[in-house]
Amino acid sequence: METLGKPLLPALLALQPLETLRRTGWVLRGIADPETIAGHVLGTCHAILALGPRVDPPLDVERCLALALVHDAPEAKLGDLPKSAAELLPPGAKADAEEKAALEVLGALSPLALELFAEYRGRSSREARFARLCDRLQMGVRMIGYRRLGVAGLEEFAATVAALDCSEFAPAAALRAEILAGA
Amino acid sequence: METLGKPLLPALLALQPLETLRRTGWVLRGIADPETIAGHVLGTCHAILALGPRVDPPLDVERCLALALVHDAPEAKLGDLPKSAAELLPPGAKADAEEKAALEVLGALSPLALELFAEYRGRSSREARFARLCDRLQMGVRMIGYRRLGVAGLEEFAATVAALDCSEFAPAAALRAEILAGA
Amino acid sequence: METLGKPLLPALLALQPLETLRRTGWVLRGIADPETIAGHVLGTCHAILALGPRVDPPLDVERCLALALVHDAPEAKLGDLPKSAAELLPPGAKADAEEKAALEVLGALSPLALELFAEYRGRSSREARFARLCDRLQMGVRMIGYRRLGVAGLEEFAATVAALDCSEFAPAAALRAEILAGA
Amino acid sequence: METLGKPLLPALLALQPLETLRRTGWVLRGIADPETIAGHVLGTCHAILALGPRVDPPLDVERCLALALVHDAPEAKLGDLPKSAAELLPPGAKADAEEKAALEVLGALSPLALELFAEYRGRSSREARFARLCDRLQMGVRMIGYRRLGVAGLEEFAATVAALDCSEFAPAAALRAEILAGA
Amino acid sequence: METLGKPLLPALLALQPLETLRRTGWVLRGIADPETIAGHVLGTCHAILALGPRVDPPLDVERCLALALVHDAPEAKLGDLPKSAAELLPPGAKADAEEKAALEVLGALSPLALELFAEYRGRSSREARFARLCDRLQMGVRMIGYRRLGVAGLEEFAATVAALDCSEFAPAAALRAEILAGA
Amino acid sequence: METLGKPLLPALLALQPLETLRRTGWVLRGIADPETIAGHVLGTCHAILALGPRVDPPLDVERCLALALVHDAPEAKLGDLPKSAAELLPPGAKADAEEKAALEVLGALSPLALELFAEYRGRSSREARFARLCDRLQMGVRMIGYRRLGVAGLEEFAATVAALDCSEFAPAAALRAEILAGA
Repeated sequence: METLGKPLLPALLALQPLETLRRTGWVLRGIADPETIAGHVLGTCHAILALGPRVDPPLDVERCLALALVHDAPEAKLGDLPKSAAELLPPGAKADAEEKAALEVLGALSPLALELFAEYRGRSSREARFARLCDRLQMGVRMIGYRRLGVAGLEEFAATVAALDCSEFAPAAALRAEILAGA
Repeated sequence: METLGKPLLPALLALQPLETLRRTGWVLRGIADPETIAGHVLGTCHAILALGPRVDPPLDVERCLALALVHDAPEAKLGDLPKSAAELLPPGAKADAEEKAALEVLGALSPLALELFAEYRGRSSREARFARLCDRLQMGVRMIGYRRLGVAGLEEFAATVAALDCSEFAPAAALRAEILAGA
Repeated sequence: METLGKPLLPALLALQPLETLRRTGWVLRGIADPETIAGHVLGTCHAILALGPRVDPPLDVERCLALALVHDAPEAKLGDLPKSAAELLPPGAKADAEEKAALEVLGALSPLALELFAEYRGRSSREARFARLCDRLQMGVRMIGYRRLGVAGLEEFAATVAALDCSEFAPAAALRAEILAGA
Repeated sequence: METLGKPLLPALLALQPLETLRRTGWVLRGIADPETIAGHVLGTCHAILALGPRVDPPLDVERCLALALVHDAPEAKLGDLPKSAAELLPPGAKADAEEKAALEVLGALSPLALELFAEYRGRSSREARFARLCDRLQMGVRMIGYRRLGVAGLEEFAATVAALDCSEFAPAAALRAEILAGA
Repeated sequence: METLGKPLLPALLALQPLETLRRTGWVLRGIADPETIAGHVLGTCHAILALGPRVDPPLDVERCLALALVHDAPEAKLGDLPKSAAELLPPGAKADAEEKAALEVLGALSPLALELFAEYRGRSSREARFARLCDRLQMGVRMIGYRRLGVAGLEEFAATVAALDCSEFAPAAALRAEILAGA
Repeated sequence: METLGKPLLPALLALQPLETLRRTGWVLRGIADPETIAGHVLGTCHAILALGPRVDPPLDVERCLALALVHDAPEAKLGDLPKSAAELLPPGAKADAEEKAALEVLGALSPLALELFAEYRGRSSREARFARLCDRLQMGVRMIGYRRLGVAGLEEFAATVAALDCSEFAPAAALRAEILAGA
């Protein structure tokens, strides 16, 4: 029998804007049509695939990937609030809004999708902390990409990368060093 | 003597992202590269130029234009938070963040720029209320534009236009009727 | 009663292309998708908001903004003719065409819109001359923006900025100096 | 010996904007990023390759292609002036400007390039008249392409196609009929 | 110590084009700037998150996600060859090229990345077959998205969806039905 | 009588994607929205118009143009396979696929279109060899264009230009020298 209980197509269509939504942080630095959320998510997963298997003690790398895949899904409802926006909102307001949005956009997919988001958000597992770190490192890799296209004035992004705490995951520190050497 | 006290170029560059920042509401409805904030602001001013001189008793139309011109300037720091985001933030949080952002991005231009923003925000003058109404009507005009490009599924925008209270400004009601007839 | 006499929606739709029409001058220098007319207009208004209140004796800054808002409206009918095109047309031909186009696209909005265009065009008021100067300075600010994205070969734009006569408005001279220092 | 007399690279770079310059006529109908001049030229050549060999008495089809290839080159200096602009300029002003621009941008390539432009412009040969007709028919083919993407309100373009005089070239009349049937 | 053995930054930069590379199949149907590979991959993962937990007997959903994440990585070296290209190449040639490209672009990340690609390619596990099916269903979801933007002439894509064999995974059949109902 | 035997409109529409299809080689180097096939073809023709009349003994320059015009038409069916893809396919596989695609997309236009493709492909005439050389040189001119926009890391393209054999056509060697001097 072909039934899913309630329809899934609307839930999948509601997530499609992640394919075209631009990362606001780059727009506010003058890059007119920068990477999309989808691009950022895929880049984060590539960083996980590169660094994850090198971490010791071993990580559940596939869990890391699953966590990264859902981490920006709330933006399908919220848009992409840059760091400069989060800082002007009440403490915790952005995180609360994201949780409510996740409940809607990921809850419509499956309980698993929501569970992954909650784990990512809670940073309670090593996998969640590692996925978050790779999310930050992806920004550095993207910054290097824009440098090669000629973009100047990205020091603020380099500073964010430099300030990342990589102490829990040694391979991340090595990539951070590579990024800073190229910045 | 050629001096502005402190430099103005950085303040003007900080506002340039409004030229390329896309209106998130349309992106979340599947339009990949919709109008920018600058496009929205100009369209709002066109509506003011069309309707303002028809309002009775007369409005200070140039004041309306000046109010409209600054009304989305905080987005240069915040990005464009769609209605669906504002609804998930604490009451007043978006407005507070915009005021803080305005202080920075408009305050760096001139006291006049800030004063205009405060008047627009407070809705205390007829001019401010009219500028706000034209901001909403522009969304309806833009919706008609997208309809003509073939876009379906914009009923939510039409409903917002239908719900606008135009009782204070009769010519606005006439434009609203035109939009709804074309929707 | 909800009537505007004749419909305004078509007139507003006819001006929407200003939101997407690209400034030809940048395209001809190799920038594929440069700022739009709407972006240019908004940037010009930001320059007015920054410099206008500093001018002595005082200007009617809101009038300046209103003049700037309509100054490129004829391009909704003509497209954006770059300087290199104007120079190959008979003397006055571009200006004449713009006046005819303004009659159509702005005349359909309101007599005020047309009156503003005529004042801007005539350069008879200090406000009109200041708005024109800010239109030119915006090009310089935009040029700095493109420099930071890596674009080279924009000397011609810098030369135009350098040649601007800012003697009537001292604060404009200061911004010009900032632009040239950054160019 | 490797010499071209004077350098050709600047002349070739000066023509590159044709690769990104958008056809203004479509922009003014609400299509944000329509076909480029290069796209239009290639489409015109495809129409020539389809219809040309069917014309009787036979045409010099390669000459037709060469004429089509240069026909919009002046736009690298002028931008793309839509029909609505040409109508507001003095009679012949657009054509004169194009000839002057051609002298510069095509003259810098070779005498042949200029000669082709002059023949196209003069409509003295059957080949020139046929290339011009295919330039017009390409607009119709492009219109059908936009229809299939959902764009409405292109009746004006269909009317232009319907009014084309195809009496000199029977195969062109057949394509015109196909376009109008699909419009 | 901060070392990865050999540098990872070049490998991550080499995969960045997946963020901007457009899916050729849509381009060849007239959609100028369609979804990117990154968008497609993310959409595929959303389908997995929606359908995967509903499959009985249970799947290793995280494994499915990991397989989907790498499945188009070779396109960073090959570009996106549409079905119409694969059909004109020798049998197996596209698959062979992808395996060689995977060796390079995924091999540079980690052995795990390569292993995932091999499993996806071999279709030996239920997880691999399910990930492949969701890759195909995402095309259907994307098609519905384009329909809503007004795009016509996508029957070929609907036919591909209709022909999908969903017998191994009942929930996929339900989504297929939803897509076809909306097509 | 208005008949073409079989309809030509579908054949012309099938070639329209060349107007928007991006050259994959640039995408894989990080340029998000590079030149289209149409842009590349027009640029190649400009190089022919510049260099062709300078070649001694004289070339049939119009034939060269016609050959260049069809040379990438198969990409309307295949997409743009970059050099890195061709190298991973069996020897001759890309060329074979292009011939089959040409049969379809150019054969639908006219026998002349196919004949031109076959001559270009066979390199049997001086005109075909010259058109091919100009196709390669256009890549160099385009590279200079991207350099001026700030793009770094294009050495691979410069190396390809440096390696071009221009011995048969002296003027081509001069342009190559200009490109390398600017690279």
